[in-house]
Amino acid sequence: MTATIDLNSDLGEGFGIWRLGDDDALLEVVSSANVACGFHAGDPSTMRRVCRVAADRGVAIGAQVAYPDLAGFGRRFIEIDPAELADAVLYQLGALAAFARAAGTRVAYVKPHGALYNAAVHHQAQAEAVVAGVRAFGPLPVLGLPGSRLLAAAEAAGLTPVLEAFADRGYTPEGTLVPRGRPDALLVDTGEVVDRAVRLATAGELVAVDGTVLAVPAASLCLHGDTPGAVAHARAVRAALAGAGVEVAPFAGLAE
Amino acid sequence: MTATIDLNSDLGEGFGIWRLGDDDALLEVVSSANVACGFHAGDPSTMRRVCRVAADRGVAIGAQVAYPDLAGFGRRFIEIDPAELADAVLYQLGALAAFARAAGTRVAYVKPHGALYNAAVHHQAQAEAVVAGVRAFGPLPVLGLPGSRLLAAAEAAGLTPVLEAFADRGYTPEGTLVPRGRPDALLVDTGEVVDRAVRLATAGELVAVDGTVLAVPAASLCLHGDTPGAVAHARAVRAALAGAGVEVAPFAGLAE
Amino acid sequence: MTATIDLNSDLGEGFGIWRLGDDDALLEVVSSANVACGFHAGDPSTMRRVCRVAADRGVAIGAQVAYPDLAGFGRRFIEIDPAELADAVLYQLGALAAFARAAGTRVAYVKPHGALYNAAVHHQAQAEAVVAGVRAFGPLPVLGLPGSRLLAAAEAAGLTPVLEAFADRGYTPEGTLVPRGRPDALLVDTGEVVDRAVRLATAGELVAVDGTVLAVPAASLCLHGDTPGAVAHARAVRAALAGAGVEVAPFAGLAE
Amino acid sequence: MTATIDLNSDLGEGFGIWRLGDDDALLEVVSSANVACGFHAGDPSTMRRVCRVAADRGVAIGAQVAYPDLAGFGRRFIEIDPAELADAVLYQLGALAAFARAAGTRVAYVKPHGALYNAAVHHQAQAEAVVAGVRAFGPLPVLGLPGSRLLAAAEAAGLTPVLEAFADRGYTPEGTLVPRGRPDALLVDTGEVVDRAVRLATAGELVAVDGTVLAVPAASLCLHGDTPGAVAHARAVRAALAGAGVEVAPFAGLAE
Repeated sequence: MTATIDLNSDLGEGFGIWRLGDDDALLEVVSSANVACGFHAGDPSTMRRVCRVAADRGVAIGAQVAYPDLAGFGRRFIEIDPAELADAVLYQLGALAAFARAAGTRVAYVKPHGALYNAAVHHQAQAEAVVAGVRAFGPLPVLGLPGSRLLAAAEAAGLTPVLEAFADRGYTPEGTLVPRGRPDALLVDTGEVVDRAVRLATAGELVAVDGTVLAVPAASLCLHGDTPGAVAHARAVRAALAGAGVEVAPFAGLAE
Repeated sequence: MTATIDLNSDLGEGFGIWRLGDDDALLEVVSSANVACGFHAGDPSTMRRVCRVAADRGVAIGAQVAYPDLAGFGRRFIEIDPAELADAVLYQLGALAAFARAAGTRVAYVKPHGALYNAAVHHQAQAEAVVAGVRAFGPLPVLGLPGSRLLAAAEAAGLTPVLEAFADRGYTPEGTLVPRGRPDALLVDTGEVVDRAVRLATAGELVAVDGTVLAVPAASLCLHGDTPGAVAHARAVRAALAGAGVEVAPFAGLAE
Repeated sequence: MTATIDLNSDLGEGFGIWRLGDDDALLEVVSSANVACGFHAGDPSTMRRVCRVAADRGVAIGAQVAYPDLAGFGRRFIEIDPAELADAVLYQLGALAAFARAAGTRVAYVKPHGALYNAAVHHQAQAEAVVAGVRAFGPLPVLGLPGSRLLAAAEAAGLTPVLEAFADRGYTPEGTLVPRGRPDALLVDTGEVVDRAVRLATAGELVAVDGTVLAVPAASLCLHGDTPGAVAHARAVRAALAGAGVEVAPFAGLAE
Repeated sequence: MTATIDLNSDLGEGFGIWRLGDDDALLEVVSSANVACGFHAGDPSTMRRVCRVAADRGVAIGAQVAYPDLAGFGRRFIEIDPAELADAVLYQLGALAAFARAAGTRVAYVKPHGALYNAAVHHQAQAEAVVAGVRAFGPLPVLGLPGSRLLAAAEAAGLTPVLEAFADRGYTPEGTLVPRGRPDALLVDTGEVVDRAVRLATAGELVAVDGTVLAVPAASLCLHGDTPGAVAHARAVRAALAGAGVEVAPFAGLAE
């Protein structure tokens, strides 16, 4: 039996004249593209291009829904009314769906971005609002942090929760992420990143910063796209997975 | 045989805390709602509410696509690249479609707003860009000015062009609108507005400012929603049409 | 000796085509105008008009600084980085100052708006950030809630803190505002609002919801401009103060 | 007697997380920084940083005023009402002035950006609107294209028009810019760019694409900052001018 894993990355995060990350390079590596929908980044023409290339390469398109905050790149918590948040999620899903459909595919899943991703870990009302927005659109899987309110709310609402792990983030022995700012918060060594990816895909395990081995049943591995060396890391991970006989494939179906 | 006409009006043109026009009153009068999609006006929660009420009342939902210009309410010509304009149209259509579908209905047609409406009368590249955006979404009818490049481009692309007339605008003997600023540009007398509506619906005729009778095969009559007396005009038109035995009904189908 | 009090109100809170409140009516009543600076509301042309009328009438111009959030009207808490908040405050102050100067006057004080006003009551870092932004502009007085972190930070930084009371809000016996949502949160009776204004101006006292008399050394009384009956309340307050021999005058100087 | 020339470049054209060009490198080369003011690019914190570094290095700060169009980077013509354009210019000037003053300097001149720069060459009403906005702020010099309506309007209004030439653009024998898209529109050879700069500074001459020598009394030379090789070109120009004994200095005074 072949091991399989999904690789996801944030894409299409430019705006107007501005670019962020190397979309084309990452679209050759990942199996799932978290596409920015215009609220924290992304504009209509960028969305069209990313959806087109993703469709051509068999990469699944996910809606990277966010707070309405271009100036803050969606990285600032906003105490938005839950009903308005649900509507904002639905708006973004609809907009992206038009580009996905025009490219011959569909939106296959949802993943919140930045501060909304973090809020939805603990903030019950916002977690439920994201789920309400998704349900109003349709029964899409929700990609998120294991143990988050978001995934619990998704499951409670009849949506499929999908667990992800991070290729380059340090984990505590309890399985939570080491807070940014601590020296072991980020894995910078390509070898370490690659080892994690292979072990996660083949054994469902991940090694915490103190050496504890954690069982992590993640179906998807998140590769960052905007850090230095991001593309090199991503390519190394993909190559190592191929070498280990692991199939890289979307967790979500590409067709309705 | 019963005469039938569609009544359309711009709706959902608030933004955040700000309101414009009386959506609820107009939704009791019109058969087609041109719903703002967030680019010149409209926000997700307003779109949700308008779509919900429209669906409940059997009012057809049209996408009122616009330039990206909240500060200018979409009333300023923008020399936007045609490919980017097409993408902007597709984005707006997708966003509105999500709310329409959540309300149990669909986007039934497209009508450009403000400066884009005006540009698409003469500006071939922008007219074609609007049509390209619509086609990328699906084969929706396009509502516009008789004789406009927009309707010609729609027809050339295989979309259904739908002609509209204006209930309260003065017409020249040539069938064009009297430019705003001239004293006879606007009909302010309710009786005149009502007479036009009934004659248009029953005889396909419209009287120009000099008394010339024009044959105008318009399928829809546009009622302004944000002028003083707009709601009173709209109600009077609706009542007079009922009195004349004219059926008011959407020109576009409500279901896919 | 004549009693004196300042009356302040939020003004210029439209955006583009949208209006909020009756600026012209309120500018005939208040002595200090908290002018929106474009971040939660307000646009350049609105700012110019409000500054012009304020200058003509001897009304002091204050900068109503806010979070960057037109969609939320600045009423949603944003976890913005304090350094960026200070820069945002400085930006808004500079923009407004250009219109004040073009009208022959100057920005005379600062008052945070909405969620930033509320955050600056308890949130030390954001309170200090607002003050840092003001100091970078110049030594302006800061108008705020008695007991707030904002006024303490202003005083610590060498700025003049100015206390305000609310004409139409219920107060607890401890001198804090009754939370919105409680039935006694708002004074709706014009007589009550007027009595409070006169007693505050003449005796420095204010009656809490349980009848407790509070000593409140407020130099300014805030009149809301966007609630039903706002203009009527404001005019009644102004007339009653005149009848009681109270002078209504800006707390801040109009010239540099 | 020493020849002197000013070197200007567009700076601070990032927004939020996004960057454009290498501000720090260019601030070591230019004598005048056209700083984006938040309408086409630029945010408060970027404006603060650029003004701080410019002040430290004796670089003059100019306001790079633009249409309100982040999505289009100010490169799309907008048929904005002239009175609103004047107000938009004044708003941007005021905002930038706050950062300049906080850095111990001042806004020393104005240069329109992108589509507004191009419109102000021929569009009389918009040219006059820019000038009206500047005059409402104060008597600042206006930097622009020789022969433009903008410079004529500035002069007519009593402002100082300042002529600029482009280091890397092809010129027709008539002294106008070769339209972008033609093969000789851009000078890509560093040697050619450098030769132009030195000849312009020392002899007031510039060579057109057909070899015609044009007398161009430009006080400032524009260096692009966002093209490939921009920084290398800029450094080479600066070094060559030094080698030719030309002083590089702001055309505008740094203090009020």
